[in-house]
Amino acid sequence: MQHTAPSLRTRVRRKPQRGHYDPATIAAIIDTALICQIAFNQGDSVHCLPTACWRVGDALYIHGANNSRLTQTLLDSDCSVCIAHVDGLVMARSAFHHSMNFRSVVIYGRFVAVNAPDEKKTALTAFVEHVSPGRAALVRPPSDAELAGTAVLRLALNEAAAKIRNWGVEDDATDLDIPVWAGVVPLRQHAGQPESDAGAAEFTPTALPEWLIS
Amino acid sequence: MQHTAPSLRTRVRRKPQRGHYDPATIAAIIDTALICQIAFNQGDSVHCLPTACWRVGDALYIHGANNSRLTQTLLDSDCSVCIAHVDGLVMARSAFHHSMNFRSVVIYGRFVAVNAPDEKKTALTAFVEHVSPGRAALVRPPSDAELAGTAVLRLALNEAAAKIRNWGVEDDATDLDIPVWAGVVPLRQHAGQPESDAGAAEFTPTALPEWLIS
Repeated sequence: MQHTAPSLRTRVRRKPQRGHYDPATIAAIIDTALICQIAFNQGDSVHCLPTACWRVGDALYIHGANNSRLTQTLLDSDCSVCIAHVDGLVMARSAFHHSMNFRSVVIYGRFVAVNAPDEKKTALTAFVEHVSPGRAALVRPPSDAELAGTAVLRLALNEAAAKIRNWGVEDDATDLDIPVWAGVVPLRQHAGQPESDAGAAEFTPTALPEWLIS
Repeated sequence: MQHTAPSLRTRVRRKPQRGHYDPATIAAIIDTALICQIAFNQGDSVHCLPTACWRVGDALYIHGANNSRLTQTLLDSDCSVCIAHVDGLVMARSAFHHSMNFRSVVIYGRFVAVNAPDEKKTALTAFVEHVSPGRAALVRPPSDAELAGTAVLRLALNEAAAKIRNWGVEDDATDLDIPVWAGVVPLRQHAGQPESDAGAAEFTPTALPEWLIS
């Protein structure tokens, strides 16, 4: 396990005991994400935009239309990517000690374009498999025109940090007699009842990632 | 309803039919969020950090330790704030037409410090009420020292845009005979069984926001 930050800017300074730098911890947080937020500068502004993401090996992938602002700008400058899951509401006996349990990752670096058709296809297949394991083999694969119109971008995970809070209430000793419920309300993202498109084949319950259904 | 973007940088350019600029739509998306991501520049880097947020009136609020990098830096430069909810996996018959249903808001501007003790108290009370309606009256309110150690920051919502996708599969007509399930798998954030702290009073089921339990 890696205990030190890979760079000064990834070092968790606020509450450093919550910082984690080992690749397995970072990968696990990314692998239960559907979207990330990307901070980048363009023109006179800093921007924060959400986009779908997935991981293959030691890189984060995103995709978009070839002519989109996001995919074009990201190739020209460094960015910061954030993924954050809220796992629980920590309800303390004082307003001050309320908190949230969470798992987050922040990544720094510059995206590179995935241009080789084989790598692009592999990455897009991994995206379909990320949202629905086993599905890539069942759907129509991308046509050459669809592939050409899609930009796939890859960001190395070698400058990343995770931050995790996953414990209970930390009340002041003098507050413990306050007669209010205190504890953690766990939160999770969960799949509901699938809504079938007209004429679709039967839904297969196993076709969702375990972390969305278990 | 406001149909035009409040500024050039908030105009939704990619798929503009998904853009919304009316305050009620923007407020509703913020009001079902627990965290936002903030993009800002500091030193030689752009950063993307998550933090808890809530809304009062026409402003977004965040808080943090008075000596934290985030709260200090944000007062000195413009930022961009993103809130994004993934509402569903849109499973098409082709890999290319897979999509996600989502509601997102992007806000531009500069945070200002909330220094007046009364406004600070009101804002922090609203935060407790946001995560647990009715709870602020039951817990110990912040002491003067706790208030002094907490920075509360406010960002006006007058330069913001929402983007929403909330419909079904859009397959090519030539793909409709592919024998694979297609449709939308709705996703939502949901509260699980509360985990009581030792010695805590009984949990009140109504003490959670409707959007986390219904």
